[in-house]
Amino acid sequence: MKEKRRRYLHNTSIEDALNLFFQKGWQETAGETVEVTAAVGRVTAQAVFAKISSPHYHAAAMDGVAVRSQDTVGAAETAPKRLRLNEQAFPVDTGNALPAGCDAVIMAEDITEFAEEVEITASVAPWQHVRPIGEDIVATEMLLPAGHRLSGVDAGALLAGGITQVEVRKQPKVTVIPTGNELVTPGTPPGPGQIIEYNSTVFSALVSEWGGEPLRHDIVRDNFDQILEAVANAAQNSDVVLINAGSSAGRRDYTADVVAQLGEVLVHGVAVRPGKPVILGVVEKTPVIGVPGYPVSAVVALEIFLKPLLYRLQGLAEPARPTLRSVFSRQVTSPLSAEEWVRVKVGRVGERYVATPLSRGSGVITSLVRADGIVRIPQQKEGLVAGEEVDVELLRAPDHIDRTVVCIGSHDLTLDILGDLLSRTYPGHTLSSAHVGSTGGIMALRRKEAHLAGVHLLHEETGQYNIPFLKQFLPDVPVTLVTLVEREQGLMVPAGNPKGIADIEDLTRPDVSFVNRQRGAGTRLLLDARLKEKGISAEAISGYDREEYTHLSVAAAVAAGSADTGLGVAAAAKSLGLDFIPLAKERYDLAIPQASLQDENVIKLLEVARSTEFKQTVDGLDGYHTDKTGEIAYQGE
Amino acid sequence: MKEKRRRYLHNTSIEDALNLFFQKGWQETAGETVEVTAAVGRVTAQAVFAKISSPHYHAAAMDGVAVRSQDTVGAAETAPKRLRLNEQAFPVDTGNALPAGCDAVIMAEDITEFAEEVEITASVAPWQHVRPIGEDIVATEMLLPAGHRLSGVDAGALLAGGITQVEVRKQPKVTVIPTGNELVTPGTPPGPGQIIEYNSTVFSALVSEWGGEPLRHDIVRDNFDQILEAVANAAQNSDVVLINAGSSAGRRDYTADVVAQLGEVLVHGVAVRPGKPVILGVVEKTPVIGVPGYPVSAVVALEIFLKPLLYRLQGLAEPARPTLRSVFSRQVTSPLSAEEWVRVKVGRVGERYVATPLSRGSGVITSLVRADGIVRIPQQKEGLVAGEEVDVELLRAPDHIDRTVVCIGSHDLTLDILGDLLSRTYPGHTLSSAHVGSTGGIMALRRKEAHLAGVHLLHEETGQYNIPFLKQFLPDVPVTLVTLVEREQGLMVPAGNPKGIADIEDLTRPDVSFVNRQRGAGTRLLLDARLKEKGISAEAISGYDREEYTHLSVAAAVAAGSADTGLGVAAAAKSLGLDFIPLAKERYDLAIPQASLQDENVIKLLEVARSTEFKQTVDGLDGYHTDKTGEIAYQGE
Repeated sequence: MKEKRRRYLHNTSIEDALNLFFQKGWQETAGETVEVTAAVGRVTAQAVFAKISSPHYHAAAMDGVAVRSQDTVGAAETAPKRLRLNEQAFPVDTGNALPAGCDAVIMAEDITEFAEEVEITASVAPWQHVRPIGEDIVATEMLLPAGHRLSGVDAGALLAGGITQVEVRKQPKVTVIPTGNELVTPGTPPGPGQIIEYNSTVFSALVSEWGGEPLRHDIVRDNFDQILEAVANAAQNSDVVLINAGSSAGRRDYTADVVAQLGEVLVHGVAVRPGKPVILGVVEKTPVIGVPGYPVSAVVALEIFLKPLLYRLQGLAEPARPTLRSVFSRQVTSPLSAEEWVRVKVGRVGERYVATPLSRGSGVITSLVRADGIVRIPQQKEGLVAGEEVDVELLRAPDHIDRTVVCIGSHDLTLDILGDLLSRTYPGHTLSSAHVGSTGGIMALRRKEAHLAGVHLLHEETGQYNIPFLKQFLPDVPVTLVTLVEREQGLMVPAGNPKGIADIEDLTRPDVSFVNRQRGAGTRLLLDARLKEKGISAEAISGYDREEYTHLSVAAAVAAGSADTGLGVAAAAKSLGLDFIPLAKERYDLAIPQASLQDENVIKLLEVARSTEFKQTVDGLDGYHTDKTGEIAYQGE
Repeated sequence: MKEKRRRYLHNTSIEDALNLFFQKGWQETAGETVEVTAAVGRVTAQAVFAKISSPHYHAAAMDGVAVRSQDTVGAAETAPKRLRLNEQAFPVDTGNALPAGCDAVIMAEDITEFAEEVEITASVAPWQHVRPIGEDIVATEMLLPAGHRLSGVDAGALLAGGITQVEVRKQPKVTVIPTGNELVTPGTPPGPGQIIEYNSTVFSALVSEWGGEPLRHDIVRDNFDQILEAVANAAQNSDVVLINAGSSAGRRDYTADVVAQLGEVLVHGVAVRPGKPVILGVVEKTPVIGVPGYPVSAVVALEIFLKPLLYRLQGLAEPARPTLRSVFSRQVTSPLSAEEWVRVKVGRVGERYVATPLSRGSGVITSLVRADGIVRIPQQKEGLVAGEEVDVELLRAPDHIDRTVVCIGSHDLTLDILGDLLSRTYPGHTLSSAHVGSTGGIMALRRKEAHLAGVHLLHEETGQYNIPFLKQFLPDVPVTLVTLVEREQGLMVPAGNPKGIADIEDLTRPDVSFVNRQRGAGTRLLLDARLKEKGISAEAISGYDREEYTHLSVAAAVAAGSADTGLGVAAAAKSLGLDFIPLAKERYDLAIPQASLQDENVIKLLEVARSTEFKQTVDGLDGYHTDKTGEIAYQGE
């Protein structure tokens, strides 16, 4: 606490930051000569001109005989003409050079063969069935301009034009320096406060994708001199240096001072969320980027600053992402002080594409794994309202999105199994499931944001599952309930049950802390129903207000000791080594509106849900029953 | 001619051919375990589950002090509270583990420091500024399903979840066997009838692009036994075998017989143009494709059959190409017997995208180099009419097309120089030039297919260049003429001028053969004007009817000895080592309709045309003058 925080973050707009960074006039990398056969994917440093023509001789374009067209004049059905073999008519295969003097080819089908002659019944025009010299390529013509990324076909054309070596831009070398006392290399079990260093793997993949050559540096500890040395060396030996992290203004954030001492800090802090604590600088004419530590912040910062830089160094334009006009499904608020990058899941529900925001945490890398695209909320905009049209910058191809079944609702482990089996049975088809609880799922169906919803809502008065809620919240929409599984819900406790928890009454004990599910979750309704039955007040339970969104999150809280117990399914308890005290068996259904039942992706999903393989896999899990799997529990009208 | 052609090509529809081929039920390749850090781009063979949570401890989300929230109860502006350092308040940086018992973090900005205490002025809620265990990943949750291609972010998420190795599908091994007596390896100067073997480079690049591992076999001569041995070995050692070529029904086409002897021919001949002579077969359970020899036919055949096969072997869906609704600019006829793949150049002219067909020759690989996309004309359709709307399957990104200047008209070498300089000055910007002659260019402007046209049309009566033609053919369109260059036109003759050609009169000599430019070409008009001046009849010239489309093609014909002379520019003669007899100096203009003058890509092009670098480069060519380059020769109203 006593150390002084040396620097403060500014909030430079993205546009200003790009201008400050790029006015340094970064130059293209030098050229190098490589074999054409190994040049696919590389970028031409100079225009390339053909050395020879293709064909470089007059070539037969058909199997048959090569002739002088003037020898055929006068031939007709009524007046066949005979040509002497190997004097006037030369057998040729496609691709053969025409003998000297010949200027046409007659197809094999159009001649009659005799011992030493062929008979023809029509005259031929000069150059018939001939590929003349230079039909494809004429020597000296420009085959490719500078700044062109070679495809396989381009390489073929260069070889055809007699070029075997080509001058291409060197791939920009990008040194990635991970820094931090808390980092351990992958494979080392991390202790408390330690983090597995995975950012350099992500950065390296992005560098490769954008045409650069990543050089991964060993982890450097939080030591000013060590970081300084690493950056100074990297600036000498590479075209770009990335320092990760230490780019903020905390006690051990050395990056800005290191860059300032070795060169110049151009920008510190950019008006973007996530991604603010970014540093742009220059050391020995080499661009240096201080990249934030949180993975999402880091990726955003690299997208904005590294991507255009690498394309610039290769003499290429930065490619634009394809966009997809979509309906934004939720309200989100966004600070006026920064542009916000919202990761979204996109689904085609009916005739429209619906974009649903994912976790906005900058530390949640799985939000990038799950994202189909990005929606940028401009700096001066306060947010987005539900139903607003937005352009989603796509991270996946539109046809992938068209093959995605969107499931929003309660989480169940068997949904993951179903999705995996769907992808294996029908390659390219995926199940996207968002976990907002059963009630949230029904609301999503009402807003037409999802193809189906996973629900397990116990109705207190009737004791019925799901049906009363559909009638209440979706009175005008015919919905079919297909049972996915039946499952056991119960209290998860640490192995050995140290606090001797036996039933719901124990939750009120002063020595017992609870972790709950969020409002609208079926599991929470189940708890509330049991509490009501037993006349227990929610206020009597310590931790009733602490909400988690999935069974596994509740199990994780219990496993970590931050709560003594929580309600959830047996499989979640089992997977984290917890004990399980069963309280109820409940039905988990897929609620499917009539329109979705016609959707071919949903049809495939239901087929997989009813397969023997799915049932067998689920039967292998604790606390699941598949007797009713695939059955129609209710058919709305 | 005496050898029997053993097999006949069928004309199986694409759909039937795919069914016959894929009903063999090709299985996914086996899995293999690789390091996650090396797995980007690979495809998961199984679902992947997290081993540890991330964070795996409760982590500070801010720099500040970690506290027990209950210790802060009661703190307020009016009633500050002090907490003892390292007993009740523990300094933490972002990412640190919370000390045992702590459940909240207070930001550094919100505390006042004293020697052994900190003072706070507000109470905090439990879990404020804390990233709880499992916020990103909960141990045992499914991180990725099977059949998922790993991105860098995915790899990061696996590492974060404690996974260091992952089971991915082996890359399908594809052996490429080039066959043919006529083939020579790149770098060997080809003799007459010899062809540089470049297809295997193209195929290898496509295999890599589609996720396979290409294995290039040495060239095999046209010998049944040698091909048999190569295919038998390859079928043992790879997942797919490509034999190129010998897939037709000619004298030395052994592929079908080889496949039949080793295994089974499923299909021979498919109803597609180009690409008909394809063979689909199976040898020892390994799929074998006999690929046509012509490069365009080959690429089409691989797109149709190899691409879905490789995706199938990886357990992936074949990605769809993005399409762009465009206006087809020309009439083309297409056989009813086959689906035709037309390569097209696409440009955004005004508000619409215009697709212009390129060379339809199956041997013209440069048509694939230049193509922006493919238009498929279905088997039962007779062709396309000008102005018809089509879906172009894009080979390049839409933003590339949006940055392309479309020039249709007369060819001049300096257009290539201009395009190269444009790409170097403005990365990503390209000049697409189609060579249809000056008159063709003006017609393209009339049909709004091009941004501008290169023209050099001599008006016989007035002796004026270009202007009278604009007034005649584009009376209602204001067009500006910007001079690109002045250039010398003349007769190209072999070095040393063996036939002693001196002037236009020599073209009528019986021992002199001529090669002409196509109708509508400015060079042809120049010839016709000279012939008229001198009272020479076109019929008196042998070869007047033989048409080529560019200066270089004419020069190539003279260089190859298939004509004694032709009319063209000095630079074309020089580049192929020909002598040049000057006849006239002419103006070569860019004709630019008013609408195009506002186009930002055209503005950039003109800026480059007026640059010193462009003029200096052109001045280095024979027979060019740049005194008037960039000047406005005419401004239409």
